[in-house]
Amino acid sequence: MYPSTLHRVSILGSGVIGTSIALALRRAGVLVSLSDRDEDVVAKAELMGAGEPLRPGDPPADVVVIATPPSTVVRVLLDAQDRGLGTVYTDVASTKARIVAEAELAGCDMSTYVPGHPMAGRELSGPFAARADLFAGRPWALCPHLATPPGHLHLVAELVAVCGAEPEVLPAAAHDRIAAAVSHAPHLVAAALSAGFAGADETVLSLVGKGLQDATRIATGDPALWCDILQQNAGAVAKVLESVVRELDDAVLALRTMDRAAVAALADLLARGNQGRDRIVESWPARRVEKTAART
Amino acid sequence: MYPSTLHRVSILGSGVIGTSIALALRRAGVLVSLSDRDEDVVAKAELMGAGEPLRPGDPPADVVVIATPPSTVVRVLLDAQDRGLGTVYTDVASTKARIVAEAELAGCDMSTYVPGHPMAGRELSGPFAARADLFAGRPWALCPHLATPPGHLHLVAELVAVCGAEPEVLPAAAHDRIAAAVSHAPHLVAAALSAGFAGADETVLSLVGKGLQDATRIATGDPALWCDILQQNAGAVAKVLESVVRELDDAVLALRTMDRAAVAALADLLARGNQGRDRIVESWPARRVEKTAART
Repeated sequence: MYPSTLHRVSILGSGVIGTSIALALRRAGVLVSLSDRDEDVVAKAELMGAGEPLRPGDPPADVVVIATPPSTVVRVLLDAQDRGLGTVYTDVASTKARIVAEAELAGCDMSTYVPGHPMAGRELSGPFAARADLFAGRPWALCPHLATPPGHLHLVAELVAVCGAEPEVLPAAAHDRIAAAVSHAPHLVAAALSAGFAGADETVLSLVGKGLQDATRIATGDPALWCDILQQNAGAVAKVLESVVRELDDAVLALRTMDRAAVAALADLLARGNQGRDRIVESWPARRVEKTAART
Repeated sequence: MYPSTLHRVSILGSGVIGTSIALALRRAGVLVSLSDRDEDVVAKAELMGAGEPLRPGDPPADVVVIATPPSTVVRVLLDAQDRGLGTVYTDVASTKARIVAEAELAGCDMSTYVPGHPMAGRELSGPFAARADLFAGRPWALCPHLATPPGHLHLVAELVAVCGAEPEVLPAAAHDRIAAAVSHAPHLVAAALSAGFAGADETVLSLVGKGLQDATRIATGDPALWCDILQQNAGAVAKVLESVVRELDDAVLALRTMDRAAVAALADLLARGNQGRDRIVESWPARRVEKTAART
């Protein structure tokens, strides 16, 4: 159990992410209050042992976690601050810059809001898919405003640590550029790859190996939620996709023409693919992820 | 131990695939002779317990497995048949139609050649990366010529079963079209995605999650070997890539314009990505692969 000075946390939005955070906090002995626009969802999260329903008159929480879809965060934050639900507020949305800009425009108190984004998730949704160890060893971006007192950032970083994750502090714009590269664009690439199998027959499926299984795993996830995320980070995602398309266009040219220079470019793409993959794998030892190669 | 009627198998090419087959056969008590153009590689495979070096004067094998790169298979097959190394010959190359056509042209005996392709592999290469269970539960395509006697197909199917894999008999052209979709094109897509990280800085890498790890895993693999594979199946791979590029071009348009119809198309791509992924996952229960969702 992590020695936490957090006493009480409120979770607004009791889906898979909110409930997983709640479970990790409960495991560390933190008091957790839950809410959701759907009371049944709160009841399910409560059944999971994630905490108790948030009630009017509850004392303010040390941290209020907003775990609702990106396009709803500002509205929920403004309302929560109006009601004085906590000392510090954070969120878990996959995009940051637009939410921060809209929160400023909407008149949110930026000194008590520490935008966040845990780099973990599940294909399954809802409180029953929650796991206390969902964030163990994973990065968790925090993008504090210049007006944020260090003590407030510290409180949210403590929540991140209780969840077993590693806080990474960086500006919102940098977060979004990186999230486009490491998460949002790969999601669309996996979707484009998977879409070709929507009508696949049994013969095709009989030859599916672990390689395709892994390459398409992130193509799951609620389309409405992902449309929301992608629109919130549209420019950065488009830029990464354009680069991927350029590479694939060149590969098609090489395969169609078998021209010597084009084939050399194909070999170069494969080599740069190796290098990029090496960098991605190297980024993980600190998080104790098995580096031994799995099978294709 | 599988009750095998196979007595002796020769493996030509003692890399990770050839040696893994050898280990699976040895485990079942089959005698295995090993060869490779590099004697050190044979010595390493022998150290792994994969068998003994193939010697002139050895009795003919029941099955000769050619586990060399695609562009060398016909030459190795012709030579092995000339030397009378076995009763039946098979290979493990990732492409089939061009090899079959070239083998016919080169005058190979097509009645004793059963083209094969195990749908498994490792990112690591060489005999020390071999594993006896590499093929357990995986599909293994067999593309027999019309002239192949059923008994010959049966011998190779038995070898496949001893390796723990599931033989899938289909025409070479169908194999290549499917391999382009489930393996070759996804390899290039993963390479294109990974290539963007070849020069990634520590801040970018600090936010890498399991999603990107999985999506790029197949971007490893020897560029020269993969160039060989891709060129052998160029037309089919190009066709799949063109379809992926079309999807991504539409996604970029949606993100750049935020036009209502384009955004609807984006939501549709995400939904079809879900459907395709469902098909891919459904294809696996027979192979006892864990269906419970891993984390993103």
